Amino acid sequence: MSASTGRAGRRPTIKEVAAAAGVSTAAVSQAFNHKGRLSEATRRRILDAALELGWSPSAPAAALRNARTRSLALVVRRPTDVLGSDPHFSELITGIEGELAPRGYGLLLHLVTGPPEENALYERLAAEGRVDGAVLTDARDDDARPGLLARLGLPAVLLGSPDDTAVVPRVGLRDQGAGVTEAVEHLLGLGHRRIAYVAGPPELQHTRVRRAAFEDALRGAGLRPFAVLHTDFSERGAVGATEALLDADDRPTAIVYANDSMAVCGIGTAQRAGLTVPRDMSVVGYDNLPLGSWLHPRLTTVDQQVQRVGAAAARMLLALCGEDVEEPALTGRPRLVVRESTGPAPGGPDRPD
Amino acid sequence: MSASTGRAGRRPTIKEVAAAAGVSTAAVSQAFNHKGRLSEATRRRILDAALELGWSPSAPAAALRNARTRSLALVVRRPTDVLGSDPHFSELITGIEGELAPRGYGLLLHLVTGPPEENALYERLAAEGRVDGAVLTDARDDDARPGLLARLGLPAVLLGSPDDTAVVPRVGLRDQGAGVTEAVEHLLGLGHRRIAYVAGPPELQHTRVRRAAFEDALRGAGLRPFAVLHTDFSERGAVGATEALLDADDRPTAIVYANDSMAVCGIGTAQRAGLTVPRDMSVVGYDNLPLGSWLHPRLTTVDQQVQRVGAAAARMLLALCGEDVEEPALTGRPRLVVRESTGPAPGGPDRPD
Repeated sequence: MSASTGRAGRRPTIKEVAAAAGVSTAAVSQAFNHKGRLSEATRRRILDAALELGWSPSAPAAALRNARTRSLALVVRRPTDVLGSDPHFSELITGIEGELAPRGYGLLLHLVTGPPEENALYERLAAEGRVDGAVLTDARDDDARPGLLARLGLPAVLLGSPDDTAVVPRVGLRDQGAGVTEAVEHLLGLGHRRIAYVAGPPELQHTRVRRAAFEDALRGAGLRPFAVLHTDFSERGAVGATEALLDADDRPTAIVYANDSMAVCGIGTAQRAGLTVPRDMSVVGYDNLPLGSWLHPRLTTVDQQVQRVGAAAARMLLALCGEDVEEPALTGRPRLVVRESTGPAPGGPDRPD
Repeated sequence: MSASTGRAGRRPTIKEVAAAAGVSTAAVSQAFNHKGRLSEATRRRILDAALELGWSPSAPAAALRNARTRSLALVVRRPTDVLGSDPHFSELITGIEGELAPRGYGLLLHLVTGPPEENALYERLAAEGRVDGAVLTDARDDDARPGLLARLGLPAVLLGSPDDTAVVPRVGLRDQGAGVTEAVEHLLGLGHRRIAYVAGPPELQHTRVRRAAFEDALRGAGLRPFAVLHTDFSERGAVGATEALLDADDRPTAIVYANDSMAVCGIGTAQRAGLTVPRDMSVVGYDNLPLGSWLHPRLTTVDQQVQRVGAAAARMLLALCGEDVEEPALTGRPRLVVRESTGPAPGGPDRPD
C-alpha cells in the first residue's frame, strides 16, 4: 500500500468507490486492510472499482485510522431520560472507567434509539477509526451486533451470561437468575405467599431470565406469582406499578423490583400509603447500589456486582485491543444481600392461592 | 499544504519535530494549521525543525484530523467511585446526550485524577483530532484550561456562572448561590436557628459560592452556621458528617446538603438515630434528582436544572463546532423546591447562639 499523491483534478473519495462497488465505506476500507470477512468476490469488486476510479487509501490516512485511538465505545439503547434515573449505568460506567482511566483510555458514550441506528453507528465508528473496540449491553435473542462487529473487525465484548460458543466474548456472572431465586426463597422462608415482581422491559434478555427464575422458584413451592408487571425501569413506572399492586384485593405482602431505584420508589409509595416496611410489606431491590445501604430501612437487594462486571468487560476488551492486561477472572454469581427491608409476612403464613 | 509522498528511508515523525523544536506535538500541528496562539518565534522554530527533518503534514492525514469526529469530550476530575455514587453526573450526561444523540454525536468520557493529567489529555485529543470540542466541569479559580484549549484551537464551554469576560464561554444559571439563600430563608421562616451545612470539597468554586451564600443568609438574620462540614460528596462522607452533627450538644434542627444523594443518606441516618424527618429535623438537598420526589418524606431540594444546563452546554458547543444549532437561552436561577423533608423547627424558635 503506497501513499497516493492524488491525480490531476478532484481526488476520488472512498464514498464513490463504495457506491461504485455497491458496498459500505467500511467494506472498502476492509478490502484494503485485509480485515473483516469479505468474500473474495466482493473484495475483487471493490479493488476493481477503486482501480477504475483511481482511488487508493493513503498510507498516512490508513496509519491514522489504524492507530490506537485509546477510546472504547459504549452504545446504550435507552431513552436519554432513563439513563439519568437508572443508576445502573453510572455503576457500569464507573466499573469500566476504573480500568480505562489509569491507562489513559476514554469511553465514547453514544445513546441510540434502536438496533438500526446502533448498527449504523458501529459501521461509521469502524470506517472512521474512532474507537478501538466496543462494549455491548442489553443482549437480545436475535442479536445482529456480534456478527456485525466481527465483520467490521472491531473488537467487542457483550455483557451477559458467559457463553463459550458466542462470536463475541460475553462477560458477566454465571447463573443470572440465581439472585432472584435466592430472593424468592428468602421471602418464602419469611412466610410470604403473595409475592409480586416489578420487572424491566420484556424484550431484554435479562428480564426474561429473571422472570423465569422468579416463576420457577415460586412453582417449586407450589405457588404462582401474585403478579408480574413490566416497566421501562423508570421511577414513575415503579410508582405506578406499586400503586396498582397496593390497590389489588388481598394485596401482595412482598414485592421484588428489577432495580434498586424502583425499589426505593416502591418503599416510598408503600410508606405514603400508610404501610411500614417491612412490617406490612417486604421489598427487595436489584443491583446493590451504594444508596441502598444508607436508607432507612436499609434495602435488601441482589448484588450482581455491576462495577465488577464493567471492570471485567473493560479488561477483556483492552486485552482484545492488544493492551497488556491480565484477563479478568470473574467468578461468583448474583447473590442476595439481606438487610432491613424484608421481614416476616404480616399475619403469619397465608395459604397458597 | 501539499501531500507528502515521503522520502527514501524512514519517514520522520511529528514527535521528532516536536522534540527538535522543544514543543508539544499539538504545537507542531498548530504551526502548520495556522491555529492556536503560537508566537511568531515559536512558529518559526517549529517550521525550521520540520524543514531540517524533512517532515510535513500529509494532506490526507490533516484532512482526517480536521474532519468532524462527531465526538465531544467530557473530562471529569473525580475518583471513579464518586462518579457512580453521585447521580449529578448521570443527570449532566443525560442533558448533554439529549442534544448529542439526535445529531449522531457521541460523548467521550475521560476520568482524570488532577489538572496535569487533564491538560495532557486535551493536548493529546487535539493533536490526534479525537474530538470536535470539550465540555469543562468544576471551574476552579486558577483554571488553566480555557487558555490551554484556546491555544489548542479546540472549541470548549465551561460549566459555571456566565461571565462575559471569560476566554471560553461559560454556561450555567446566573446567581449560583440563590438556591442556598432561599433554602436558608425557608428554614429561618420555619423557626430554625441551628442550621448546619454539609458541603462538597472546599477546592471547588461552586462549593465556595454556596458556602458564602449559606453564611450570608444566616448573617442577614444575625446568626452563624451551626457548622459547615466538607465532604468528598460520597454517601459515606454524608453519613459521617450527619452522625457528627447529631452527636453534637444541642444538635442542629436543620441540615442543608450539597447534593441529593447525601441528603437521602442524611435522612436515613437521622431516622436510624430515632428521629423523624421533618418533625425532629429538617433536611434540604441540592440537585432535584428524580428519586427525591418519590421518597417518603419527599425531599425539599434546590433545582439547579442539571439536565437543562447540560443540554445548553451541548448546544453551545455544537454551535461552536459549526453545527446548525440555535444558541441556548438559559434563563432562570437555582430555585428551592419545597416538599416534605422540611417543617417547623422542633420546640419553636430557639434563641440565636
